[in-house]
Amino acid sequence: MTRLSELGESHIISRVLGRNPSSTHVIVGPGDDAAVTAPEGRLVSTADMLVENEDFTREWLDWKKLGVKAAAQNLADVCAMGATPHGLLISAAVPDDTDIVCLEALYSGLFDEAERAGTALDCMVPIIGGDLSSSGLIVIAITALGTVGEESAILRSGARPGDSLYLAGTVGRSAAGLDLLFAGARPDTVGPELRSLIDTQLAPQPDYGALRTVGAASAMIDVSDGLSLDLARVAAASGVGIDLDCSLLSDLVDPLLPAAEFVLETRATGGSGDGVGKTEVAATAEDLALSWVLDGGEDHGFAASAPPSAVPGVGWRRIGEIRTGHDVSLDGTPVPASGFSHFGK
Amino acid sequence: MTRLSELGESHIISRVLGRNPSSTHVIVGPGDDAAVTAPEGRLVSTADMLVENEDFTREWLDWKKLGVKAAAQNLADVCAMGATPHGLLISAAVPDDTDIVCLEALYSGLFDEAERAGTALDCMVPIIGGDLSSSGLIVIAITALGTVGEESAILRSGARPGDSLYLAGTVGRSAAGLDLLFAGARPDTVGPELRSLIDTQLAPQPDYGALRTVGAASAMIDVSDGLSLDLARVAAASGVGIDLDCSLLSDLVDPLLPAAEFVLETRATGGSGDGVGKTEVAATAEDLALSWVLDGGEDHGFAASAPPSAVPGVGWRRIGEIRTGHDVSLDGTPVPASGFSHFGK
Repeated sequence: MTRLSELGESHIISRVLGRNPSSTHVIVGPGDDAAVTAPEGRLVSTADMLVENEDFTREWLDWKKLGVKAAAQNLADVCAMGATPHGLLISAAVPDDTDIVCLEALYSGLFDEAERAGTALDCMVPIIGGDLSSSGLIVIAITALGTVGEESAILRSGARPGDSLYLAGTVGRSAAGLDLLFAGARPDTVGPELRSLIDTQLAPQPDYGALRTVGAASAMIDVSDGLSLDLARVAAASGVGIDLDCSLLSDLVDPLLPAAEFVLETRATGGSGDGVGKTEVAATAEDLALSWVLDGGEDHGFAASAPPSAVPGVGWRRIGEIRTGHDVSLDGTPVPASGFSHFGK
Repeated sequence: MTRLSELGESHIISRVLGRNPSSTHVIVGPGDDAAVTAPEGRLVSTADMLVENEDFTREWLDWKKLGVKAAAQNLADVCAMGATPHGLLISAAVPDDTDIVCLEALYSGLFDEAERAGTALDCMVPIIGGDLSSSGLIVIAITALGTVGEESAILRSGARPGDSLYLAGTVGRSAAGLDLLFAGARPDTVGPELRSLIDTQLAPQPDYGALRTVGAASAMIDVSDGLSLDLARVAAASGVGIDLDCSLLSDLVDPLLPAAEFVLETRATGGSGDGVGKTEVAATAEDLALSWVLDGGEDHGFAASAPPSAVPGVGWRRIGEIRTGHDVSLDGTPVPASGFSHFGK
């Protein structure tokens, strides 16, 4: 084991950035005061951070998956604007007794996910800058940059009554994985079905490729905080109501039933479940699985609205309709916006 | 007192961003998945973070000054490329029992410094995005964006023998302020002279205005880690040696002598000084003051090299010469690169 404190900052940076892909857009990469790049069109930028004990725990920590998750949550935001990723800035604060191998794994996860997005969208996604700092808590703060044509950013505000609502990727799997972890499940103690849910929590895999077939969507959002909350944001920004169709969600809910049964059983038998999310209020596995689908974010599925003339292609499933109003409902019954939010309320 | 945990995330964000200036470059500001802006020319981007216990302590914490410092260290990096600031992305992680008034002070400091840079360089510097998270430790991670003409970025690699070396702003004051804090000095227990050094540590004020008169500089760097280390970076990138002229540094060293005497006296009498930086090896106040000037960063002075045909204007002082070689010297004697570096060595 070689602790970061035994190495110099520049040596560490050259080791973790060894895999950095070259990109014709990068004029000056890491190493000067700032990067210089040549974006084409308008610039799309977003920043998001993962904080130890808030977004993950040391106990579950898989450095490579943490890198995947940190990249995914930022790339998904760029892509949800209809933009093409341009580059990442990575600020990482880690304890100075961290093994260099762990930091290399973190960056390996970042590169893997950036490469996955780049392959799906036919672009290069280099790390163009960042900062490395020592800290008692692990914090990964990322800025993702992208580019979009002058009139082609897809905002939250464009949904119109008569549009249908579509989803690419999944929702609910990451929340199920989190409740499994809180219930004491670990990747090496459960079967492949539950393990894959835990993997979605630890290393979500947004379906970037579906963005190639989104077409003339009227609105789009990265579902990071749960359908109920994120669709309420679309509804508010667009001045519309949104009705989810329960029958169209069953393909998302049904695969979560075994996990819901595991979690409820663990709680019933006084297992190690700490109880987060919806576990404490769900009476049945069906209720719990549905609540994961409605309120669970972090799969980074993409929700988009589109008029009948512009039905999205491969990778998109219809899950509801845009209507007049200002709320989100499920088969006509209002759904409270109870996805994830920092700072309560 | 109103704790963040009693408020909703969106309410908090709207309160802290109330002062956000409008900018014609911003097409979509905070509130969607990502910002959309229209940079002119090439994009300059940099990211840097401030971490509690590493970069500041709760004991010395002044939220507004923390905001100033966080903005300054990122804006200085953008400006040291010869670029014009374009916008900031702010990721802040703070304990959820933080008073909203503290967070408002933090953002007030961010806006103050962004406005100061904007006024100096005749541009708007809005906050275009970011993230707010709860955390046990305070972490402020910023990405600063800027724009520069196609051929006009000023890199570290352009210094040439025969150029002179110039400084805008100061070096050493922030390091003196830090050693004063470690020696037990506090803004309300010392006179105005020492207090202003502590203020430079807590809220550095880069001389952005000097960048208007830098002219055709051959290289430039934000002196964030100390002259000895940052000039060694310029020397390495440019393939040159750099000789500092001790007599030209006296205007920087002499004003630090009272602080050096305070710090050495506190240590001699067994005061509360913890001893950081160079205190433990400096025998005299002159030695200590000179070591602050050579090795102390965080004033965010700008060092630039320029040929005789392009002497920078108002705000710049000559401090040395670019020569052949590959090291940094002071009146011909090698200076070890011993400024600040994370992770030892």
